Amino acid sequence: MTVKTLDDLFHETVKDLYYAEKKLVKSLPKMAKMATSPDLKSAIEHHLEQTKGHVSRLEEVFGMIDKKPVAKKCEAIEGLLKEADEVVGEIEDTDIRDTGIISSAQTVEHYEIARYRTLVGWAHHLGHADAARILGETLDEELAADEKMSSLAGDEDMRQAAE
Amino acid sequence: MTVKTLDDLFHETVKDLYYAEKKLVKSLPKMAKMATSPDLKSAIEHHLEQTKGHVSRLEEVFGMIDKKPVAKKCEAIEGLLKEADEVVGEIEDTDIRDTGIISSAQTVEHYEIARYRTLVGWAHHLGHADAARILGETLDEELAADEKMSSLAGDEDMRQAAE
Repeated sequence: MTVKTLDDLFHETVKDLYYAEKKLVKSLPKMAKMATSPDLKSAIEHHLEQTKGHVSRLEEVFGMIDKKPVAKKCEAIEGLLKEADEVVGEIEDTDIRDTGIISSAQTVEHYEIARYRTLVGWAHHLGHADAARILGETLDEELAADEKMSSLAGDEDMRQAAE
Repeated sequence: MTVKTLDDLFHETVKDLYYAEKKLVKSLPKMAKMATSPDLKSAIEHHLEQTKGHVSRLEEVFGMIDKKPVAKKCEAIEGLLKEADEVVGEIEDTDIRDTGIISSAQTVEHYEIARYRTLVGWAHHLGHADAARILGETLDEELAADEKMSSLAGDEDMRQAAE
C-alpha cells in the first residue's frame, strides 16, 4: 500500500507490530524450552502471557481506528529471531546458552520498545488518546521485561564468576 | 563456530556488531539522501561520522582480545534495514517520509543499544576493562543519537500540526 498520511503510517506500523507479537507468541515457548535456569524459564513464560495480552491490545487498537486486525510481515522481527536462533544454536554450555538467550531476548525487547514508544507518540499526535493509553501499557511491560532480563544477566554473571 | 565460553560469545557478538556497523556506514548515506528536513539530514550525516568511529573502536576491541577483525553476517541488521527500506519506500509525502525515517532509525539505534549494553557488561565480567570503556563510549553515542531522533520526531509532529 501507499502511505500518504500519518494515519496510514500509524496503521502500517500497528500491522507490522501485530505480526511481530503474534510471531513471538509462537517463538517464546521454544526460547523457554532452550533455557536452563528456572528463573529465566519462568521470566520467559511470564512474558509469553504478557505477549498474548499485547496481541489483544493491538486488536483493540485496530478497532479504535476502524480497521480490521491484519498482520503485515515484519522483516525486523524475522531478522532478530533468525539471529537469536543462530546464536543460541551455536552454544553448547547451558549457562552460556542462558546468557545468549537473555542477550537475544533484549534485542527483541528493544525493537518493541522503539516501536511502541513511536506509536504512543503518533497516537497522541493523531488524537487517539485511548490507543495511546493501551499502547503505553504495553510499552511499560516491555520496559519491565527488559529490566528483568538485565537483572537475570547479572545473576548469570555471578553464577559464572563463582564457578 | 561452536561457542563454549563467555569469551567465545563475546567474540561472536563483536563480529556480529562489526558487520552491522559496517553495513550502516553504507546505508546511512542513502537514508540521509531520502530525508527532506535539513536537520534530519544533518543528524544522519553526523551519526554516519560517529558510526565510522564505531567501526574503528570495534577493530580496537578485536585487538584487545587478540583476534583479527572479522565480520559475521548480522541477520538482525539485515531485517531492520530491509524493513526500513520497505517502510520509507511506501511513503509519498516528504514530511511523513521523514517521520518514517526517524522511526526506522530508532529501531536500529535500539538494536545497537541492546547489543552494546550487553557487550559492556560481558567485557567487565571478562576483565577487559579497556574494551568495556571504549564500547561504553559507543553506547553513549548511540543513546544520544536515539535522543536526537526523538527530539526531531517532536519537531516533525509540530510541523505537521501547523499545516
